[in-house]
Amino acid sequence: MEVKTILLNKSVFEDNDKEADALRLYLESKGVFLVNVMSSPGAGKTSTLVSLINRLKKSCRIGVMEADIDSDVDAVKVKDKTGVKSVQLHTGGMCHIDAGMCKQGLDEIGIEDLDLVFLENVGNLVCPAEYDTGAHLNMTILSVPEGDDKPLKYPLVYEKCDLVVINKIDALPYFDFDFEEVKRVVKRRNGKAEIIPISAKTGENLDRLEKYFIRILNKE
Amino acid sequence: MEVKTILLNKSVFEDNDKEADALRLYLESKGVFLVNVMSSPGAGKTSTLVSLINRLKKSCRIGVMEADIDSDVDAVKVKDKTGVKSVQLHTGGMCHIDAGMCKQGLDEIGIEDLDLVFLENVGNLVCPAEYDTGAHLNMTILSVPEGDDKPLKYPLVYEKCDLVVINKIDALPYFDFDFEEVKRVVKRRNGKAEIIPISAKTGENLDRLEKYFIRILNKE
Repeated sequence: MEVKTILLNKSVFEDNDKEADALRLYLESKGVFLVNVMSSPGAGKTSTLVSLINRLKKSCRIGVMEADIDSDVDAVKVKDKTGVKSVQLHTGGMCHIDAGMCKQGLDEIGIEDLDLVFLENVGNLVCPAEYDTGAHLNMTILSVPEGDDKPLKYPLVYEKCDLVVINKIDALPYFDFDFEEVKRVVKRRNGKAEIIPISAKTGENLDRLEKYFIRILNKE
Repeated sequence: MEVKTILLNKSVFEDNDKEADALRLYLESKGVFLVNVMSSPGAGKTSTLVSLINRLKKSCRIGVMEADIDSDVDAVKVKDKTGVKSVQLHTGGMCHIDAGMCKQGLDEIGIEDLDLVFLENVGNLVCPAEYDTGAHLNMTILSVPEGDDKPLKYPLVYEKCDLVVINKIDALPYFDFDFEEVKRVVKRRNGKAEIIPISAKTGENLDRLEKYFIRILNKE
């Protein structure tokens, strides 16, 4: 299936925080809720989104922006497996998405007929956390094979998020991974973050993730 | 065990490539071979280094620099498990190591009594590939749970390396991972890169990795 690929330009705005606040307000005025998804490469952002969107799409109209340095495999996968609107954002080598780049993607995807947009950020635990994209909710995914020490080593991406999804829990028997240690470190850095363990592959606990989003969307 | 932690300063040099070339020549004049190790967070850089160093340390004098945004768990692990000289480099939030930062680390670790130094770069598939550290050999680690599409999505880190190590092959039965696809994409982007599949956990194929390094070191 073909998807549109957008080559992003470098932001012209000096002040990303102001631009992000303006974008957030603009989206609110249009009734659109934006979710920024961050993780290491290969933690399962796309698979998690596919599973979640297939549960949420009956109750709201969803669009997805897939940011990558190169290739359009993720946008194609989302479109093929969910049927929702999806665009690929090429960052031209950039390691993150800022508010201006996010706005370019939203202009291209067209938000008039959408209630919920997911931005899958570049797979990177460092730089994306430094740039407010204008999202209403930041979600960080940690996958079991990466190890339980990631919140210790990459603190900012855990401080800046509202939700931590721990993916690939089906692989727990094959890896040393201390759940309690992760919870302890995340809670110390970020008291407000909810932590939801799932397996996008087997579907375990996806009902909990779905309920979380339905609760958040109904509050808005 | 205690290790020294060094807070790196931003490089003063304008031209990183020139600084990297100068560092490479300086290290050669001192008989020191520098290896830059890059991967996603959690691909197993530290575990691979620990296993490899324990095999190589009988034939040469080794030092390790562990770069991280925060924490000193990796430098402590290397020192505890190998006994070789190890320092932690704190990047102050920076997402990569450049030649100037690498030089600061080398000055602190002291290279007079070393033949081989490993720099474990920040866990990140994007930014580290953009900065020549002055290393003589660049090694990229891909772990099986990350998926076989990483060379497609993060091309530069595969173009810029001499050696691709595919780690966690003990987890192959639990993940969809197409080895031939990885080899095909890596070879297309980078005809000279050697590809060595290993398991740092079970020790599988570590003899091949050890032999690769002994061959490279004897050539120098």
